[in-house]
Amino acid sequence: MTGQGLLLVISGPSGAGKGTVCRALMARHPEVAYSVSATTRKPRPGEIDGVHYYFVTRERFEEMIAAGELLEWAMVYESGNYYGTPRQAVLDNLAAGRDVILEIDVQGALQIREKFPEAIFIFILPPSMEELKKRITGRGTESAESISKRLACAATELSYVKKYDYCIVNDLVEKAVEKLEAIIIAEKCRVQRLTLPTGGGES
Amino acid sequence: MTGQGLLLVISGPSGAGKGTVCRALMARHPEVAYSVSATTRKPRPGEIDGVHYYFVTRERFEEMIAAGELLEWAMVYESGNYYGTPRQAVLDNLAAGRDVILEIDVQGALQIREKFPEAIFIFILPPSMEELKKRITGRGTESAESISKRLACAATELSYVKKYDYCIVNDLVEKAVEKLEAIIIAEKCRVQRLTLPTGGGES
Repeated sequence: MTGQGLLLVISGPSGAGKGTVCRALMARHPEVAYSVSATTRKPRPGEIDGVHYYFVTRERFEEMIAAGELLEWAMVYESGNYYGTPRQAVLDNLAAGRDVILEIDVQGALQIREKFPEAIFIFILPPSMEELKKRITGRGTESAESISKRLACAATELSYVKKYDYCIVNDLVEKAVEKLEAIIIAEKCRVQRLTLPTGGGES
Repeated sequence: MTGQGLLLVISGPSGAGKGTVCRALMARHPEVAYSVSATTRKPRPGEIDGVHYYFVTRERFEEMIAAGELLEWAMVYESGNYYGTPRQAVLDNLAAGRDVILEIDVQGALQIREKFPEAIFIFILPPSMEELKKRITGRGTESAESISKRLACAATELSYVKKYDYCIVNDLVEKAVEKLEAIIIAEKCRVQRLTLPTGGGES
């Protein structure tokens, strides 16, 4: 009953708290693999290369695209920053039966949907648009221009929720993580994912 | 975010333990409604009319069919016993936002699938065919002929598992119930079931 791990694609507007929810899930389930994205954006204070992102130059990123080393990639905001998912680590973890989390934006998620129709698409929502604005504004690490771009982008991302399988409203992180755990358990019970042990009397 | 309750259709061969799993779920979640079936079969020792089943005569059952009082019905085994689901209680509970469990056989489940495509279909499996035989034989309340019919019927029911959404292997009741709980939580996060609170800034 082992076999491939689940590929969990998690998206949501900036400020919905998807990072917090993912970290809380992994604190409870260290067996789940987190796919570290590559990006050309500058590290924020406290971010560590190889942990939060692989921080790479534009040249290196474009090499990765050309060499097919990325499972999906996208350019976000008007900043022109690239984000992408290194392919090999994801495939290795899935083959080893580990569940893998991809915390990526909607553009990237749509690329994954085409390549991995069996992946599970989960959208994290803020409890309300007011709360979303408060969270984005309150982060305090970004310029007014950057905040304004994030708000515009959040509105666009929200319109994609219907392309996802599941939607979790993140009012309380604890409850949001429980829902994420439930989705993982439930998906492992899906008939189309199971190798059924009832074929001919084997125990 | 309230609205209709979930309709959970639970099937599985005799001896898979679906009754035990359902009772354990309801002990934890008294808010879940259990649909009491009507049947023409004789009560087993300890079974109470209106709790385990509505025990009715063949004449009364056929009246219920004719009057459209049953959501689904089937005749099982060669015994010719009828089983069916009284319609009104199910509809009332769903409309009141309560989740409803239908513990019914595969014939009945296929009828529900046609009428309620949004219902959730869960199949309970025994850990192995050996274990299934042991459970059916060990119940000790039935004749050899009845046991032999149950075994034949179990084999037929097992072939329907692929028509279901989820499949839970009942090796430990505790774990099986956790999976059932997870399926209920996950299904409530399904994008197509949600009334999304992000339309225009309401909190």
